[in-house]
Parts: sequence; C-alpha cells; structure tokens
Amino acid sequence: MDVIEVVGFDGDDTLWHSEHLFADAHERVATLLAPHVERGVLERRMHEVERANLALFGYGIKGFTLSLIETAIELTEGAVTASEIGELLTLGKTMLAHPVDLLDGVTDVLAEVAMTRRLVLITKGDLLHQESKIARSGLAERFEQIEIVVDKDEQTYRRIIAATGTPPERFAMVGNSLRSDVLPVVAAGGHGVLIPYEFVAEHEKVDDADPARDGYRELESISGLPAALDALDELG
Amino acid sequence: MDVIEVVGFDGDDTLWHSEHLFADAHERVATLLAPHVERGVLERRMHEVERANLALFGYGIKGFTLSLIETAIELTEGAVTASEIGELLTLGKTMLAHPVDLLDGVTDVLAEVAMTRRLVLITKGDLLHQESKIARSGLAERFEQIEIVVDKDEQTYRRIIAATGTPPERFAMVGNSLRSDVLPVVAAGGHGVLIPYEFVAEHEKVDDADPARDGYRELESISGLPAALDALDELG
Repeated sequence: MDVIEVVGFDGDDTLWHSEHLFADAHERVATLLAPHVERGVLERRMHEVERANLALFGYGIKGFTLSLIETAIELTEGAVTASEIGELLTLGKTMLAHPVDLLDGVTDVLAEVAMTRRLVLITKGDLLHQESKIARSGLAERFEQIEIVVDKDEQTYRRIIAATGTPPERFAMVGNSLRSDVLPVVAAGGHGVLIPYEFVAEHEKVDDADPARDGYRELESISGLPAALDALDELG
Repeated sequence: MDVIEVVGFDGDDTLWHSEHLFADAHERVATLLAPHVERGVLERRMHEVERANLALFGYGIKGFTLSLIETAIELTEGAVTASEIGELLTLGKTMLAHPVDLLDGVTDVLAEVAMTRRLVLITKGDLLHQESKIARSGLAERFEQIEIVVDKDEQTYRRIIAATGTPPERFAMVGNSLRSDVLPVVAAGGHGVLIPYEFVAEHEKVDDADPARDGYRELESISGLPAALDALDELG
C-alpha cells in the first residue's frame, strides 16, 4: 500500500528555475552601479534592504525591483541617474516576463508520481506572477489543488494538509527550501524531501540542519523522487 | 425563507477605503513633478502606463509605484532626480502601510447580515497586502471563506459560488465596481448589488450600464443592504 498518498511540490527552484533570475539581476545591478558603489558594499546593502522591506512587500519581483531602486538611490546618495533607475525598472519587467524554464526531469517525474499519488502545488509569492508561471509551465493539470500563499509556515501546511483529507503522516512535501518546504512540514507531522538548488535566497537560509536529526530526506535531483517516496512507503 | 443564502463582499472601497489613496498619490505626484511636467499630460500618461503594465504587474500598490516611477522618468526625459524618485518610493510604502479605514456602517451591517446569511469575502490584488488589510480590518472572523483572486470574471464567480454549495440564484455579491463585482456575477446567474464609491479606478470604469436592463440593484450606501437583501428574498 502507498503510505504517501499526497505529495506537495514547491514551484520556484523546485519545478522551474527562479532564483538564478535574482542572482543575474544582482550581477547586472552591480555592473550598472559600478561607477557609483563598491561591489561588496552594494551586495550587502541589497540584501539588507530586501530583508527590511519583506514585511511590507512580500516575496516577488515587484518588491525586489522597488528594493533595488531604493538601494541604488541610497548608496549613491542620489547620484544615480533617472536613466539608470529606468534600467532597473526594465530589469524587473524582463524578470517578470521571463519564460518558465522547467528543471531537468520535472515533467517525467510528475507524470510517474501522479500515477499512484495525488499532487498539490504549494507556492508563495506574488499571486499574478505565480499564476502566470503555473499556466506557462504546462504543469497545472497535474495538480488537484494549487495553493499560492503569503508564507509557508507550520500553520499553512496544517491547513492545506487538512484540506486534502489526508492524515499528515501520509503527506510528503518536496522543495528546495529547508525553511519553507521541509522543516514546517515535518513540524506539522508530514514528511519533507529537500532537493537543494544551486542558489539559495538569503531569506531562505537556515544555519544548521541535518536530515537524520531534523527528520527529512535530501535528494540531489528530482529524478530520485519516485524511489524516495517508495522508500517512505516501506517505512510506513 | 431566505432566498439569498450567501452574500459575497468586495473589500477595497466596499468595506474599507482604498481608491482615495491612489487619488491622493496622483495628487502628490503632480505636485512633485510640477517643475517638470504639465498636469494634464502627467495625469493622462500615468493612466496609460498603469494600464499598459496591468498584465505584467496586476493590481496593487507595488505595481502602481513602479508605474509612477516609469512615468516620471519618461515624461521628464530623465530629468527627474533620484531624490524625487525616492519620494515616489516612500509614497508607495506609505500607501502600503496605511491604516485600514472601514466605510461608515460596515461593522453593523455585516453583523446584521451575518445573523441570517453566510458571508464570503472576494477581493483582488496583491496577496500579502490584501491579507494584511483583512487582518487589520478586524472583519476576518465574519467570513466563512476569503478568496483573494487575480481577476474577478464570470469564471471566478462560478468557481467560488460552486465552492459555497449554493445555487447561483441564492448568491448575491456586493461591491463598488460594476465591472468586477456586479456584471460578471449577474452573468454567472447570481445577484449583484452595486454601492458606488466616490472614486472609480480608471480600469474599473464601464461606459454604460443600467440596473433594470443589466439586472442588478444600486444602493447609495451599505446601510441599505439588509433591506435590499430582504427585497431579493421576497422576489425569490
């Protein structure tokens, strides 16, 4: 019998690439502002401003772009030109319009997992942009439920798991963020499967975690997921 | 018997003030850019840029702020200063942090309607900002369901009405926008109650509508709602 009945998937950097856009944007901003600001100072201040604005702006590219503009004005003490700020605006728009690139193996793995389990998509960030990416991903039909949430904490997962009608021990969440996809799911009584991505957003970093101690599994890529779910079934 | 079993409420400018913040912001931008741009030109171009960016940015203050910055750079041909753009950023942040002001009578009317009917809140825009306003409104507990959506079209209402388990003819939607709160609900087989607000956003304007012809009711203020719902019951 399948113990794991419902599998939740994160979107950004689990099913499709996202964080590289932010990393590329930091790169381009550094180049753009090189005449004004020293690189290390800029990097540090960009992260500080993004973090400080998170409660007001939330996750997503529009807030990120506003934070970039704020950082540029502040660090150049007003010397940044309107045309340079215009380039930051264009950068944000380009990020929003960027095509959805699926990670390797995603399509096949979802098809395989969907043969024996129910899938839900649980993503956070900007409502319009997430809906647009889901639509453009071509994966929407795979999921019986799609949840776009403000924050992925234990309470969020308890609500979503309850809505599936499945006990938490039969629910597994797959994602690239320990803080958002794994630890709160384990705390809610479910299973967490971590698939790290090349880049980790500053606000998603966790200082210290260990699969054995913190009760989750870690995979190198999504291609190992069907076997990992089978292994969880065996334990059940 | 109550024919109207479920009542949907819009949030912005139906339960709490919102559009006046955008109107005030336009006012302040006009003052700020008065040395650079003629007022009428600015007003027209602000609306055009907001409309052009709607598909990419969606509704909400972050996208509005980015559009203001874009308009300012474009219309001044880059002469706007970084410090003036910084003021536009601050304006956006002030709007996001603005206290939630309920419209007159809202608390009492919701309490009265909730005695005999089920209430749902259906609002559109930025997920984080809408959730924050709902929490700060103190009204969240009144609603059995809260839906924050990208766009309020007929299909959206069909889905939400179906989820309530009520036939459309027993559902009434209350809001200030003909385009978003009334006409698509009537098209979905429900009832629409329009309560116009002092300001109408450009993108919500409808050229020509008539309660009798288009099958909705119009009230001057929310205080008339209990009687209007009773009148719908009588017709049923």
